[in-house]
Amino acid sequence: MDDPLRLREWFTSLVGPRGVVKDKLQILDLTTDRRKRYVGQPLLVLKPATTSEVAEIVKLAAQTRTAVVPQGGNTGLCGGATPDASGAQIVVNLTRMNQIRAIDSVNNTMTVEAGCVLADVQHAAAEADRLFPLSLAAEGSCTIGGNVSTNAGGVRVLRYGMMRDVVLGIEVVLPSGEIWHGLRGLRKDNTGYDLKHLFVGAEGTLGVITAVTLKLFPRPTTSATMLIALDTPGDALQLLSLAQSYLSGRLTAFELISATCLTLVRKYFPSIQAPFPISYPQYALIEISDTCGADEMGKTLEVLLSEAHGLDIARDVAVGTSRKHIQQLWQVREYISEAETADGKNVKHDISLPISRIADFIEVTDSEIAHTYPGTRMICFGHLGDGSLHYNVAPPQGADRDAFMAANLVRINRIVHDSVTRFGGSISAEHGLGQAKREEILRYKTSTEMNLMRAVKNALDPLGIMNPGKVL
Amino acid sequence: MDDPLRLREWFTSLVGPRGVVKDKLQILDLTTDRRKRYVGQPLLVLKPATTSEVAEIVKLAAQTRTAVVPQGGNTGLCGGATPDASGAQIVVNLTRMNQIRAIDSVNNTMTVEAGCVLADVQHAAAEADRLFPLSLAAEGSCTIGGNVSTNAGGVRVLRYGMMRDVVLGIEVVLPSGEIWHGLRGLRKDNTGYDLKHLFVGAEGTLGVITAVTLKLFPRPTTSATMLIALDTPGDALQLLSLAQSYLSGRLTAFELISATCLTLVRKYFPSIQAPFPISYPQYALIEISDTCGADEMGKTLEVLLSEAHGLDIARDVAVGTSRKHIQQLWQVREYISEAETADGKNVKHDISLPISRIADFIEVTDSEIAHTYPGTRMICFGHLGDGSLHYNVAPPQGADRDAFMAANLVRINRIVHDSVTRFGGSISAEHGLGQAKREEILRYKTSTEMNLMRAVKNALDPLGIMNPGKVL
Repeated sequence: MDDPLRLREWFTSLVGPRGVVKDKLQILDLTTDRRKRYVGQPLLVLKPATTSEVAEIVKLAAQTRTAVVPQGGNTGLCGGATPDASGAQIVVNLTRMNQIRAIDSVNNTMTVEAGCVLADVQHAAAEADRLFPLSLAAEGSCTIGGNVSTNAGGVRVLRYGMMRDVVLGIEVVLPSGEIWHGLRGLRKDNTGYDLKHLFVGAEGTLGVITAVTLKLFPRPTTSATMLIALDTPGDALQLLSLAQSYLSGRLTAFELISATCLTLVRKYFPSIQAPFPISYPQYALIEISDTCGADEMGKTLEVLLSEAHGLDIARDVAVGTSRKHIQQLWQVREYISEAETADGKNVKHDISLPISRIADFIEVTDSEIAHTYPGTRMICFGHLGDGSLHYNVAPPQGADRDAFMAANLVRINRIVHDSVTRFGGSISAEHGLGQAKREEILRYKTSTEMNLMRAVKNALDPLGIMNPGKVL
Repeated sequence: MDDPLRLREWFTSLVGPRGVVKDKLQILDLTTDRRKRYVGQPLLVLKPATTSEVAEIVKLAAQTRTAVVPQGGNTGLCGGATPDASGAQIVVNLTRMNQIRAIDSVNNTMTVEAGCVLADVQHAAAEADRLFPLSLAAEGSCTIGGNVSTNAGGVRVLRYGMMRDVVLGIEVVLPSGEIWHGLRGLRKDNTGYDLKHLFVGAEGTLGVITAVTLKLFPRPTTSATMLIALDTPGDALQLLSLAQSYLSGRLTAFELISATCLTLVRKYFPSIQAPFPISYPQYALIEISDTCGADEMGKTLEVLLSEAHGLDIARDVAVGTSRKHIQQLWQVREYISEAETADGKNVKHDISLPISRIADFIEVTDSEIAHTYPGTRMICFGHLGDGSLHYNVAPPQGADRDAFMAANLVRINRIVHDSVTRFGGSISAEHGLGQAKREEILRYKTSTEMNLMRAVKNALDPLGIMNPGKVL
């Protein structure tokens, strides 16, 4: 191994003074993950400004066998962008590469650099009278490169798919330092293996994504939001089926929220209005949007609600009547995570299931948890329309949270993940594996699949310099 | 190499008598490609009945270094499922594996075996009141395994995506003979590399797909079809943009048809009615579908047509008024390929372009071809909404077709493919590479990309037994 001082000098020479982070607080910030579970000690934190600079960095990394940790907005929840504590890994933060390279409103595509903040990409699309649909809590600070590397999801997957589904082309610096110029804007291209899908969701273990070409969509001109009070997750599933057959592509969000979640939000954010005078066991938050006129939307909504009443499962309905009211309805959903944080640590799970199994999964798993850990509270909410749940277990009221977590986290994870697997689900729906679930996944994937993944990793990154210790 | 006789004996013992094709005519049929450009000489043609039988075949193939050519309905257009002439390759035809294993109408998924005929899958979905959207000319005989292996497209890609976009899970016999059980029915799953995307579109070079889990969609309850007469492809692009912003997900097909195509169809199928009393340079065939009522559809259509008139580009409009009339409008599109066949050989291209470049591409390339080959006729039609064109060049009237093809095919391909590449397009939009474009692609892909593909191939199939001579 080369002397760290000389390595620092060499890498620094590739990017110039603005390309190296010197400030110690900033370094600490960029080497600590969002949930503060991982704190790394880097050799260097670099902020290259161009694809060529990234290529030079990776070339030198390959020559010197230096590990590279690609990073965007550092908002990941599994430690995928945090270096280890060896002091030997370099963080390559892409936030200076934040140019929107092109928008083509006839082809419905835009090409953006990896360091663009998601909200900026949404705005740029809107300015061209188009929709870039990906939308998630961290959109004000997460970057497109990170969204692609973790195959981000969010609230509109039901209609527009995951990040993977809206990426048409990709530019990647490969582990050799070579650049693969794959920025295509084509809907149909059958000329061999679709390599871009390898890099999407690979969490930086196969290369550094520097730019992508994204799909754009017609911008909806009208929308409606409603919260429907229900008795059970099973009723929510019935309502989802109804909404899908009736609304088809107009259904853009279908979120499930349990009474416990609403109580928590109201406890910590009392300014958020209760949607109904009394409490109900479950709520479905539904968003419809369309490119047609407001009249038609009103009619659509009317028919949907009358059909829902016909099902005899809707206990109450709140339809957003103003911009402000709609915002309030969404806040019920959006503030759950912050309310959880305010409430204190809990055991989080980011899972997905076949949609048809969700009600049974919740019933069976709730009961197993309640039996094993009396007094724990289930904080269950999520994107029902995509089969994805945030299924979190909060310690009993009054318990010492840290002690409870230390003693039981592993076993609770085990109960939930084993149950997910029995129901045909996934132990990471949206957040990836990173460092957090790298060991856990070995329990649930077959050796056949793990070996396939390792074969791909070794083929593309034979030196193992790309984000080692993550995913695999 | 082992003695062919003994190899035949060994392989035959794995599948039983029904699993081996003995009939010489049938063997000839299964070793000749659809366009009759490739005729192979196989060691054996096998028809296994189960995934385990496929696994046993591939295991023995690996042990004996025997090449395996996976095959579905044998409707491919690039020779991807045809063995070579060595007499050493075995064809593994999957048409006996034609079970629909499960339909889950709440999860909107179905799991089907690779040998299911596409039309049967569409019907099974419809019986469960769901839509399986993939639709293409060969749907009565092509199989799902082939559709997945070639990432099939067709007329509804605009709304529902390519085959790749509707595959959620996959079961594959790997080149080692191991089975990867990846039949998941999840919309969100971020647990490592998305390996299924490697096998989709790999044309059998990475393994044998034995079953898939597919996405289903709400079944449209109303639809409308219209043919709009236009002056230029540029006008068609304008109309497409308008239709997209106005209709969003209701727009399910947008096909471009040139006057030459219509003339050809009318010449060879005079029973197909002319849609208009006079001829126009271009036509757009548009299909709208929705889950709403017929009244709403009528209104939508009305507004669309009035907007189109506002653009002042629609020269005439024919709206399908009855089932029969709609069928007639579609026949104008569907009979083009057969009319071409009746007319005699021509130089075919299956290309795609950024949608915004299509009009310019057609103008520039038409002119280059006309300049180089006076008298040739351009037969240009395709899925404009996806940027995909069938851009075919017919020899001058009265020319000796065979002589013309023999003398000029390579150079015409070169002109068209070079032009496609200058416009940022792909030389294979829908049909894959197979044997037909395996050499050609080397001219258009960078060595970086080809090397990535080779690295993946070598990692998954180190012995090179899976469909050698195809794609790579």
